[in-house]
Amino acid sequence: MEIDKAIGIFDSGVGGLTVMKEVIKELPFEDIIYFGDIARTPYGSKSKETVTKYAREIVHFLSSQGVKIIVVACNTVTSFALETLRQEFRLPIIGVIKPGVKKAVEIAGNKRVGVIGTEGTILSGAYQREIKSIQPSVEIISISCPLFVPIVEEGWIDTEVSNLVASEYLAPLKTKKIDTLILGCTHYPMLKKVIQKVIGDGVKLVDSATQVAIETKDVLSKNGLIRESNRKATHKFYVSDLPPKFKELAKRFLGEEIREVIKIDMSEFVK
Amino acid sequence: MEIDKAIGIFDSGVGGLTVMKEVIKELPFEDIIYFGDIARTPYGSKSKETVTKYAREIVHFLSSQGVKIIVVACNTVTSFALETLRQEFRLPIIGVIKPGVKKAVEIAGNKRVGVIGTEGTILSGAYQREIKSIQPSVEIISISCPLFVPIVEEGWIDTEVSNLVASEYLAPLKTKKIDTLILGCTHYPMLKKVIQKVIGDGVKLVDSATQVAIETKDVLSKNGLIRESNRKATHKFYVSDLPPKFKELAKRFLGEEIREVIKIDMSEFVK
Repeated sequence: MEIDKAIGIFDSGVGGLTVMKEVIKELPFEDIIYFGDIARTPYGSKSKETVTKYAREIVHFLSSQGVKIIVVACNTVTSFALETLRQEFRLPIIGVIKPGVKKAVEIAGNKRVGVIGTEGTILSGAYQREIKSIQPSVEIISISCPLFVPIVEEGWIDTEVSNLVASEYLAPLKTKKIDTLILGCTHYPMLKKVIQKVIGDGVKLVDSATQVAIETKDVLSKNGLIRESNRKATHKFYVSDLPPKFKELAKRFLGEEIREVIKIDMSEFVK
Repeated sequence: MEIDKAIGIFDSGVGGLTVMKEVIKELPFEDIIYFGDIARTPYGSKSKETVTKYAREIVHFLSSQGVKIIVVACNTVTSFALETLRQEFRLPIIGVIKPGVKKAVEIAGNKRVGVIGTEGTILSGAYQREIKSIQPSVEIISISCPLFVPIVEEGWIDTEVSNLVASEYLAPLKTKKIDTLILGCTHYPMLKKVIQKVIGDGVKLVDSATQVAIETKDVLSKNGLIRESNRKATHKFYVSDLPPKFKELAKRFLGEEIREVIKIDMSEFVK
């Protein structure tokens, strides 16, 4: 039955596990299938065409596993490919941008919102468009921070290096006196403490993970697809590559050990 | 005729252009075909299996273009896949490790050699094995520096951040009082100034680009495959993805503008 199917969540790598963590909290009885495209990570510096191609292959894979909804737990994919995926596939697909933007606009009201993300996310203008469509009077200052992802993956979370890099990237946002800052990349919540310290306590940080989980619940609920029963849920993890450090890295993002990971060959899902 | 064929050079991305630059200097009359796997870059954090698969696809592609020799201008591929490629393909294949090691051992003699590279290169132990096979008495200290590649690609070459990151990574090499340091990644020559400043003037830095070019000339020469004529050489550039910043980035590595780049779909070369 449709209701018994899993939630599919995917990302270019491990960042989407921060979203999965919130989805588990919000929907503890749902099965989840996570896919991380470790063989081709990161997406943030790649072209729209390539990222869309990869995303399409992953949605084909998740569909082949039988899922009732898909959560795109990656800002770059949401920026470049969400509309295309929605046109090409028939199941509900949730992105990470709209939920975060809704919350940010709610908090900021009429004022100045900062957005940070990968090069792809920022260049795409997706956040800027989404914010303007809800609240045209908001002033938006957006900046790409390419070094944040490798710093998080290196585990240099609260170090002199992360503080210095954050100071460099966030300087223009401080000058512009933003009041709200959207963390437009699923890796960035790991740097929340450092970003808050650099940008100042007066600025509210918004990450979309919790909002995405709530939105997922809403959409499932509207479609009558929520499993209410008090059953034990299963969580499955698939990756396209399994380098030595994967489990250690994944644990930092999910907050718990991943016992079993299955590596699959994505060339089967090229269409 | 075999002699008229091009030299094939490849890397996971743009780093190999530092090698191509030296090959052009050494062999100005040779045609060169460069391939950068931008759609799947970087390789340094990926598994041996995945890197070998990608390398095999690229060698298939370069072979399909008709090349007389292949230069693996990537330390991670050389570490993980050089032997496999040599077994599977019949044309001469040059790696970047042996030429750099020969020079380093020549300089260091019997003493302490440091090696820095990607996670894949260092974990593979390829440098360690190559050094020991030439000079067993050399003491080797090797360290992976995952942030160096993204820092170079961000263009933060001689900044407070690059200096701080270099100080963090190189501290154990300073403690061990190495006398020679192998830059075991084609991106690292871009950070030469910073690395030299941090490690101290007493340490000799070795990058393999020049040695690789000389080795390529030697092998061609031994096989009677050098084009001696004073003709104009053509240089062709192929990539698997073409993101907005590619040309700007490539220019920094090659030292000259790349006018034409052809994007190809690697899924055709999956075997």
